[in-house]
Amino acid sequence: MLAEIITIGDEILIGQVVDTNSAWMAKQLNLIGIRVKQITSVSDDADHITEALKLAEKRADIILMTGGLGPTKDDITKITLARYFNMELRRDQATLDHVTDIFTRFNRPMIDMNRKQADVPDGCTVIQNKNGTAPCMWFENQGRIIVSLPGVPFEMMYLMEEEILPRLQQAFKMPAILHKTILTAGIGESFLAVELEEIENSLPAHIKLAYLPKLGQIRLRLSGSGADEELLSKEIEHYVQLIINKAGKYVVIDQDIALEKALLTIMQERKLTLSTAESCTGGHIAQLITQHPGCSAVFAGGAVTYSNALKMSVLGVKASTLDAHGAVSEQTVKEMALGAIHQFKTDYAVAVSGVAGPDGGTEQKPVGTVWIAVATKQNVTARMFNFSGRRLQNIERSAVAALTMVLNELKQDVA
Amino acid sequence: MLAEIITIGDEILIGQVVDTNSAWMAKQLNLIGIRVKQITSVSDDADHITEALKLAEKRADIILMTGGLGPTKDDITKITLARYFNMELRRDQATLDHVTDIFTRFNRPMIDMNRKQADVPDGCTVIQNKNGTAPCMWFENQGRIIVSLPGVPFEMMYLMEEEILPRLQQAFKMPAILHKTILTAGIGESFLAVELEEIENSLPAHIKLAYLPKLGQIRLRLSGSGADEELLSKEIEHYVQLIINKAGKYVVIDQDIALEKALLTIMQERKLTLSTAESCTGGHIAQLITQHPGCSAVFAGGAVTYSNALKMSVLGVKASTLDAHGAVSEQTVKEMALGAIHQFKTDYAVAVSGVAGPDGGTEQKPVGTVWIAVATKQNVTARMFNFSGRRLQNIERSAVAALTMVLNELKQDVA
Repeated sequence: MLAEIITIGDEILIGQVVDTNSAWMAKQLNLIGIRVKQITSVSDDADHITEALKLAEKRADIILMTGGLGPTKDDITKITLARYFNMELRRDQATLDHVTDIFTRFNRPMIDMNRKQADVPDGCTVIQNKNGTAPCMWFENQGRIIVSLPGVPFEMMYLMEEEILPRLQQAFKMPAILHKTILTAGIGESFLAVELEEIENSLPAHIKLAYLPKLGQIRLRLSGSGADEELLSKEIEHYVQLIINKAGKYVVIDQDIALEKALLTIMQERKLTLSTAESCTGGHIAQLITQHPGCSAVFAGGAVTYSNALKMSVLGVKASTLDAHGAVSEQTVKEMALGAIHQFKTDYAVAVSGVAGPDGGTEQKPVGTVWIAVATKQNVTARMFNFSGRRLQNIERSAVAALTMVLNELKQDVA
Repeated sequence: MLAEIITIGDEILIGQVVDTNSAWMAKQLNLIGIRVKQITSVSDDADHITEALKLAEKRADIILMTGGLGPTKDDITKITLARYFNMELRRDQATLDHVTDIFTRFNRPMIDMNRKQADVPDGCTVIQNKNGTAPCMWFENQGRIIVSLPGVPFEMMYLMEEEILPRLQQAFKMPAILHKTILTAGIGESFLAVELEEIENSLPAHIKLAYLPKLGQIRLRLSGSGADEELLSKEIEHYVQLIINKAGKYVVIDQDIALEKALLTIMQERKLTLSTAESCTGGHIAQLITQHPGCSAVFAGGAVTYSNALKMSVLGVKASTLDAHGAVSEQTVKEMALGAIHQFKTDYAVAVSGVAGPDGGTEQKPVGTVWIAVATKQNVTARMFNFSGRRLQNIERSAVAALTMVLNELKQDVA
């Protein structure tokens, strides 16, 4: 089954916005077994849209279009589709009610331009857009399906997940497809593949294992397809358990969530608290954690001690330690972590000090040298990393390594 | 002058990577007066690449392709282009020397696959890729220009800026184009447009003013084209001065840099230091600042006091203040800022406390209520904001507002 994606909008072609919709849609389509042949971005121009659609119909069974559905004059997707399919526009009552309701709720006056949002080509199936005023339109043409979606990402995503993907599975009588993701950290892709080789070779043809690597983390995704959804679910769960038993050391959590969210989930279950003491990561670890609602149950706060003066005054690092070993050292980073435990009164503290670059590197401590320590009330451990990347990469990798070290410490505390 | 961009790679079509190259390239092309007609993403498939190229040649004068230039079997752009243009492959000595040099430097063994990176179609102009092993190839075909670039963003960007854009300007004898950007903050787009209406109306036809808004900041970009570059530069500078004189209150800096980088630049010039005291922004302000090399000249560090306990122990906020007014209040945020000034011994401190959401809102202090204070050794000022967005938006907007408040305070201290 082949699909194509056409994104419509001058803002894409002048580089004002990055088209993130296509990648997200392609990923979702792949997950239900539909391959994307081509992604095309075209301008808000009727001839150009028509040409792109005509060419896509020659190559694919499914064509998903986004954008150009707003109320203003430059949004011409709807009228272009009506002409393309030789249809007349009709005013759709359900859409009009929905649009009217939105305007009433926000207490805004409604003009004729807004009412026109309810006009749709008379041969299409209208799918209501709960999150916006532009309806989604579903066309069938000689065995092909063409869908026009709004370009606003969260409107498009909701419609894809709730409406379009299930309808496509049904229309093409596709088998049930299930996925289960396991988050691992602290092991390279090739090493993990060796660990799991036997399990991978034992997988039946309808279940596949994908390695999705990202900066010190690998997501393992088991994807299966089958006629019986319940049976499939049990089968996949069986392999999830095999993987967890085999590679448990590196398994963070059996959910598809961010590393720091996994840390928060585990610590909250165990009623543990955390603080941070950051030098080269400059607040990035705290910022990752505090993106997540409810983090305050675990995260008390932390210090960004960029200067040596603050390492001493806020975290109690000794001047003699800094003099003897420097800011980027095992001794300093341990004192930072212990200082955080003591000052911020948390169960765990993580500290990072390194040379992020591009300046500040020496022969002994080149750019990318990073020390990370994790302290509990009982002990403190530290480890050195050599990332040797660019500044932003070093910061990002340091944060991931720090979160992974806390997760490892949590595992040992259970054992 | 019309261009098309073709990005090649299965990883784009399965949604594994978001194609950010196209938007960046489109923006750069627009800046020198070349309009992008279409962006097409195709798979690593010879027929598909050939078809896309054939269609693009019908629509555009310039075709820029990225990706598919690696050493492995699935990278087939080069061989496909050779066949398309009826050329033979020849081994390019300059490229071979360059690749050999890279392998020698990294002390890696070189196999035949790597040497093949130096093979190029014999009718193209080879442009060396200083940042990688895949050379860039420039073809001319019946007045059209077709360029194949590597897909790795920083390799592509360097080649575009240093080689391709200047060569395109020369090949099509395009006029000189100059841009100058002024960063403003703290004023809405429509209000700024009213302020600048007269200046905008007085602009000659060959100079245009663009408003580029982004979360509490607006970049004003003056773009001009002309035969005489020196004269054009003087003209643009004249209008830059008119704008600064008129809207100086909102002008941060006459450079196209990030808001926090502007703050660092201004404070470093005046030898001033800064610290942060963050609650709801959770380290985001510190993280924005510490992205930039050399920030340590200005930024000493800060505290992420997520819990009330830390607001008291680290920043010295009084328990009675928290009891009487709550964590999100003028009194608390002022004590946080003054605490930072006192504890971290900096010239300036900025403090933020707010309800980022989605939980924690009340009738008096709904989600999006944020208090921000800026303290110097002499005084402290605070202001309340109502952002009422989603969590990540509220965090982002709070950070921008905090940086803007520090910038405004810096202006007053000069006056």
